[in-house]
Amino acid sequence: MTTKRQLHLNTNASNVGRHPAGWRTLPNPRSGIDVNFYREIAQLAEREKFDAIFLSDTLSLRNPAAGPSQSLEPTVLLAALAGATTHIGLIGTASTTFNDPFNLARRFASVDHISGGRVAWNVVTTYDAAAAANFGADASPDKAQRYARANEFVDVVNKLWDSWEDDALVADQATGRYADVDKIHTIDHRGSHFSVAGPLTVPRSPQGRPVLVQAGSSEDGRALAARTADAIFTAQTTLTSGQAFYADIKARARAAGRNPDHIHILPGLLPVLGGTEAEARAHKAELDALLDTSREIARLAGVLGLHAEDLHIDRPLPYDLIAKVARSTQSQGFVDATLHQAREGNLTVREILDRNPGAHRIVVGTPEQVADDIATWFAQRGADGFNLNADVFPSGLAAVVEHVVPLLQRRGIFRRDYEGSTLREHFDLPRPASRYAA
Amino acid sequence: MTTKRQLHLNTNASNVGRHPAGWRTLPNPRSGIDVNFYREIAQLAEREKFDAIFLSDTLSLRNPAAGPSQSLEPTVLLAALAGATTHIGLIGTASTTFNDPFNLARRFASVDHISGGRVAWNVVTTYDAAAAANFGADASPDKAQRYARANEFVDVVNKLWDSWEDDALVADQATGRYADVDKIHTIDHRGSHFSVAGPLTVPRSPQGRPVLVQAGSSEDGRALAARTADAIFTAQTTLTSGQAFYADIKARARAAGRNPDHIHILPGLLPVLGGTEAEARAHKAELDALLDTSREIARLAGVLGLHAEDLHIDRPLPYDLIAKVARSTQSQGFVDATLHQAREGNLTVREILDRNPGAHRIVVGTPEQVADDIATWFAQRGADGFNLNADVFPSGLAAVVEHVVPLLQRRGIFRRDYEGSTLREHFDLPRPASRYAA
Repeated sequence: MTTKRQLHLNTNASNVGRHPAGWRTLPNPRSGIDVNFYREIAQLAEREKFDAIFLSDTLSLRNPAAGPSQSLEPTVLLAALAGATTHIGLIGTASTTFNDPFNLARRFASVDHISGGRVAWNVVTTYDAAAAANFGADASPDKAQRYARANEFVDVVNKLWDSWEDDALVADQATGRYADVDKIHTIDHRGSHFSVAGPLTVPRSPQGRPVLVQAGSSEDGRALAARTADAIFTAQTTLTSGQAFYADIKARARAAGRNPDHIHILPGLLPVLGGTEAEARAHKAELDALLDTSREIARLAGVLGLHAEDLHIDRPLPYDLIAKVARSTQSQGFVDATLHQAREGNLTVREILDRNPGAHRIVVGTPEQVADDIATWFAQRGADGFNLNADVFPSGLAAVVEHVVPLLQRRGIFRRDYEGSTLREHFDLPRPASRYAA
Repeated sequence: MTTKRQLHLNTNASNVGRHPAGWRTLPNPRSGIDVNFYREIAQLAEREKFDAIFLSDTLSLRNPAAGPSQSLEPTVLLAALAGATTHIGLIGTASTTFNDPFNLARRFASVDHISGGRVAWNVVTTYDAAAAANFGADASPDKAQRYARANEFVDVVNKLWDSWEDDALVADQATGRYADVDKIHTIDHRGSHFSVAGPLTVPRSPQGRPVLVQAGSSEDGRALAARTADAIFTAQTTLTSGQAFYADIKARARAAGRNPDHIHILPGLLPVLGGTEAEARAHKAELDALLDTSREIARLAGVLGLHAEDLHIDRPLPYDLIAKVARSTQSQGFVDATLHQAREGNLTVREILDRNPGAHRIVVGTPEQVADDIATWFAQRGADGFNLNADVFPSGLAAVVEHVVPLLQRRGIFRRDYEGSTLREHFDLPRPASRYAA
């Protein structure tokens, strides 16, 4: 492990890229369901020593007419990518609201074995009513219920991952003893949401436990992250709000008795590059011209819990109306980030749409400008690294890899080669001991 | 598609091989959790044009001291194998008792995309109380309940796989229309066990629907298979019982309005090979010497719903006692097969143990003897093909591939090359239309 604080970079390969019209520019318009497309992204990111490839997820079909969303289930896609790569981490999103802890713990432990210790679970709760309807639930549970379940879910999964001690699998061919049963433990969990006996059917995986990532920015999400997560994906759009979030999470981790260096703050970031700032702007404008503005207004309205009619393209947001909306079923992080940015700049809806609303911060400029931005957030403790989107994959990532990463390496804040082979090692995280070890 | 009836061969790679002591002879004693081990098996089977590699599954840890069981979750392991192979089918077991139809339908559809149309779901119900305890259930449901849920589960999954018509994904870059929403359907399923709105988040997969395999031989299992399955794995140990089962399933399929050629009967078979029959016997004896007899007696007792003390090594089975045991929580197929063989041969417990009890039929002999056996079952309609175990992988499979498959090819009953690229094509099965297509 390095002693010097190092930047962490993931590539967020969701939806073939962040730009809603990006798929229209790809050689294969069906790339979103093509494993070779994801393989190319993972290999490209690995070539420049990224920490991980990240896959978001959705459990309902949203606006399929407009473009691809995360169709392929993340754990099976990551298992497929494991064989096409050797070092890069593999982060998959899965919901605690509509999964079962035993099956989920087993799948991630399996991918950890298959990948030689490179997997992470991005823990989310699901607030989407359309998803709930795919799982027999008439309405999605409210936020408090979702997070109560999420907290217990994560605890059960961690216990299952600990249920085999490191040396439980002896595989002694001479004596015929495959495992030392004294080092395999039932977990006998009985809680409000789950009763799980254990042990897991999978021997302890290379990372001890897969890495835990958490992606909620609400009070409940922060509490869960501070208690359990190794990394947190956030959506702050200004350095001041990023710093406040960073300080808050580190303080919470410290208060929970944890080493704050062992929880990384990784905001989303969408760099749009050009040789000059004007070229970058022109590149963005070219893609934006392919957008259906009314559809984008409807999407923004959805993020804010409004209807499309509530927004006017050349006026600021209706803050009074927004204040009245009950938003327990929206992503708090994206709502907060969008509102913060809109208020601070007194932006019209048109200006908000230009800034990737309801998603991650966008920086349009030269490689130097993007590298400056990243280095500033890193140095000033707004971030320990970034979950990098691209407007379109793989070209958006290729541009970052070719032009931005070398600048970060030259500044000495990003690795020139992997120092370990597991995601825990890339993230400078200790390998946890089993809670059941004597 | 071929017009001539062709033999189908899968390799059943469960537990690093059928022989309980097999793992003690492997170069890597931890092969059961090593993706490279499974990759080697899949590539070996693909080289000789097998239809598929098959993975069984278990949702509780059984006797870990004795040897490996299916640790790695089948869908993620098959996704990893997809990238290491190009043609061979990928059959994974998953339980309808302890899964959710939306998540399961999505994972298999995803692996079908990732593999270019090579995946199959082996549908099982779970009778294991230890598994139930990992899913919050205090006792496992009885057989009637399990199969009622299984029937509805399969129906929901099929509806979800049909929810995108073949041409729903248009991906028209010029107009920006990614999907034709008129060809994407909610399923609005409301049944006794599940309420699922749909549609699936995954566009229709290469096979239309992944292949469905079913592995239960009870009345309920046969009914489910005849109605829904493309192939059925069975455990008959004598040709007469195999023929009876074969005729029964084909008749049931016909009665259900299906083409009986579109449901393949694939019994399990464990060939143990030698250059002479004596050599084959010696090879088996060598492995058997590594067995713990008391453990094997306990395993046999468990299959029959008895205690180890109920069995005596040199006496026949206690049939009176067996008749009194309620066995709703055992695998009916294996119980029936074991009892049938034991009664027919008036076998002692020692003789039964020699014949792979509670599992699949064993043939110990020369390649010619094994090829004769296979050809006879095939010609006399005891089987459409076999799910081949090996005593130990990969050597047991390598022997079959090298010495038995060429004999079957010479007899003109097994392919010399793949004629298609999907498992449906290998299995000579039509590609189903979506039920929602106009």
